[in-house]
Amino acid sequence: MSQNIDAEQKTVVAGAPSDGLEAAKVAVGNLADRARSAARVLARADRNWKDRALLAIAASLDANRAAVIKANAKDIEAGRANGTTEALLDRLKLDDSRVDNLIAALEELAGLPDPVGTVLRGQTLPNGLRLRQVHVPMGVIGAIYEARPNVTVDIAGIALKSGNAVLLRGGSAAAHSNLALLGLIRDAIESVGLPADAVASVDAYGRDGAAAMMGARGKIDVLIPRGGRELIQRVVTTANVPVIETGEGNVHIYLDESADAEMAVPIVLNSKTHRPSVCNTVETLVLNARAAAAPEVLAALAKAGVRLHVDARAKVLAGGIETIDATEADWDTEYMDLDLAVAVVDDLDGAIKHIRAHSTGHTEAILTNDLARAERFIAEIDSAAVIVNASTRFTDGGQLGLGAEVGISTQKMHARGPMGLRELTTTKWIVQGDGHVRS
Amino acid sequence: MSQNIDAEQKTVVAGAPSDGLEAAKVAVGNLADRARSAARVLARADRNWKDRALLAIAASLDANRAAVIKANAKDIEAGRANGTTEALLDRLKLDDSRVDNLIAALEELAGLPDPVGTVLRGQTLPNGLRLRQVHVPMGVIGAIYEARPNVTVDIAGIALKSGNAVLLRGGSAAAHSNLALLGLIRDAIESVGLPADAVASVDAYGRDGAAAMMGARGKIDVLIPRGGRELIQRVVTTANVPVIETGEGNVHIYLDESADAEMAVPIVLNSKTHRPSVCNTVETLVLNARAAAAPEVLAALAKAGVRLHVDARAKVLAGGIETIDATEADWDTEYMDLDLAVAVVDDLDGAIKHIRAHSTGHTEAILTNDLARAERFIAEIDSAAVIVNASTRFTDGGQLGLGAEVGISTQKMHARGPMGLRELTTTKWIVQGDGHVRS
Repeated sequence: MSQNIDAEQKTVVAGAPSDGLEAAKVAVGNLADRARSAARVLARADRNWKDRALLAIAASLDANRAAVIKANAKDIEAGRANGTTEALLDRLKLDDSRVDNLIAALEELAGLPDPVGTVLRGQTLPNGLRLRQVHVPMGVIGAIYEARPNVTVDIAGIALKSGNAVLLRGGSAAAHSNLALLGLIRDAIESVGLPADAVASVDAYGRDGAAAMMGARGKIDVLIPRGGRELIQRVVTTANVPVIETGEGNVHIYLDESADAEMAVPIVLNSKTHRPSVCNTVETLVLNARAAAAPEVLAALAKAGVRLHVDARAKVLAGGIETIDATEADWDTEYMDLDLAVAVVDDLDGAIKHIRAHSTGHTEAILTNDLARAERFIAEIDSAAVIVNASTRFTDGGQLGLGAEVGISTQKMHARGPMGLRELTTTKWIVQGDGHVRS
Repeated sequence: MSQNIDAEQKTVVAGAPSDGLEAAKVAVGNLADRARSAARVLARADRNWKDRALLAIAASLDANRAAVIKANAKDIEAGRANGTTEALLDRLKLDDSRVDNLIAALEELAGLPDPVGTVLRGQTLPNGLRLRQVHVPMGVIGAIYEARPNVTVDIAGIALKSGNAVLLRGGSAAAHSNLALLGLIRDAIESVGLPADAVASVDAYGRDGAAAMMGARGKIDVLIPRGGRELIQRVVTTANVPVIETGEGNVHIYLDESADAEMAVPIVLNSKTHRPSVCNTVETLVLNARAAAAPEVLAALAKAGVRLHVDARAKVLAGGIETIDATEADWDTEYMDLDLAVAVVDDLDGAIKHIRAHSTGHTEAILTNDLARAERFIAEIDSAAVIVNASTRFTDGGQLGLGAEVGISTQKMHARGPMGLRELTTTKWIVQGDGHVRS
């Protein structure tokens, strides 16, 4: 374990107060400079070399799982003592099966193609100049996330594979776990001859470390916040480093009058109940007032334990089913639970109007057998993913064949929708001539 | 001319004080909402329709050139009375030949392919889901620029062609010119049946209008500042709307020892003297200490009237040529004039080190006949464009075959290097199934 980490360990574990924002800025600047040097090496490392690093991390996780789980137990214990909810403790927890998942993810990452060096476009111009626009790493990525130690391994692996160095700021409730993981990640990287500084943490500087990262324009190329709405909005509105905004999903399904229950029931159920706590789960069902399938869909949802927050017309369609009266707030709520808002509209125009007013631009789906309405929905809904006759749960990098998923971008710049490894690269124009001058 | 513009005209021309930032926020929010509605129409307008709008603007510019030039004369007069420099007055000026250039640019734009609807990638997944990732307009673009009325026409045309609405904030010294141009642009758009609100101005709200645009996250999708370093840095550090940073170019050429004078002299001369005031002109020449071509290159530059700011070793290589002693500041100066900093290094490592320390990431070139050194330069220089044996002046959207150029991005997010129409689009995933659910 490198000296740097030992020093950090002392500070974090002792809970020493940080020296304030100015000190953090200097320290984070230094870490970023070292990360930049490491990034230069990584940018030229071929795929095999980077994959060896990923597999070394996986092997070290396997060999050191007892130590990692022991460190994690300290975080869990401290969390329990602080009255942390069971749901948050569950996200914090690392056990044998979760370590297995991390190892499997690293191995899968090693099996993916390298985005670096891919030629995006190229041509030989009429004057003989040879042009290539090539994917190259961003350089130094900053990741700010909550108390989920699996993100530490995940983001370090994804950064390595895409040739980037990464500065990490994890939630302080996971400090012991992250420190243990960071140590073994850095050692594994060094063991294959790549620079350990490719993965570093600013956790020793606490909140000031996060603030320093957000202000490190020119030192950090891109910030990726991962976590809840509050965290993401704080980073987006505070940082002067470019940010990729991820994750908010107030997802809608519009049930058109032409859709049959045979198709609609399984899709709506899957969209809501397959994994209600993630961003691609449906949060509002918009029903055409004449949708014959509506009562059957609502009955199936109720039977599956979904609490229906209905407007007045939906209440009628629900018949005898127990429902909750929706308020205006329901249309903008991401329940991330077995809750679903249900609104009734007169037609596709009404559906589009409702969705435009309340969508976060993540995913919207239409269930229909009408070609013209499907086409209009595709053209007029301005979201990262527009789905026809399939579950909203497909908005996922793995499901869409992108390999590893960095997150789901809900912004329009740089990347939109599920982000894979390629979205952690930028491009470089390479222009080759033979003495060409411009006339 | 629409009522909205008449109201703006009154305010701008009377020089009425703005009602303050809060009032500007409300007003800009309303303009952005109207632009959003217009953007929805534009997003679905086919290429022919958009091209008709561009040609209508061109025809109106031609028909109303006297009125435009007269409005511009008021700005020139006011500028002269305020002691504006001749260089700035020249940038502000519109005359017949410049109006001709604007018309020609619009006609050229109409001849370019439409980026909207291009399929970036797509596949049918093993489970039968059909995927397409399609280019779609950003939505509402904000442009903040200096007193150059040609930018008003340029950015309005580029936004229209790429299916985006645009809010403009031009320098107040060009207020009369911009108002005349805005009126005819909006009338021309309306004349082909597209919504005039696709192009609007916040100039009536002065600096507060610019500030309101920078804070309009969620209302404006992307901000493009065009102008000098100070303007761009202010937007980049102030805005919470995503920004595309353009234009700063501290461009380097490295003259390797293997390059002959026959190739090196024309390239260096072209890079410095072809158009010294633009961002792709070379600003520092890095000479290998053993570069046989160096004295000839320096002599040719001096003969062309270039003032050489040299370090101690370059002074020796310059022999009897008149030079200026360089200070540390010269290595970071964008002269944008017939000035060139000249540094001597021992080898490629020294050149890379110098460039890394001082580059703005725009364009760097190597002049060499050595394959290995060319490859190392390409791999290790982290700039938007890396050029081998050609003029730095080729970093240009038109020269690289991108068609219209929006600017040259020096950031790594979204777009890097010359930006064409495609860089003003985002993407949308379209997923089509037949009742697919996730298992």
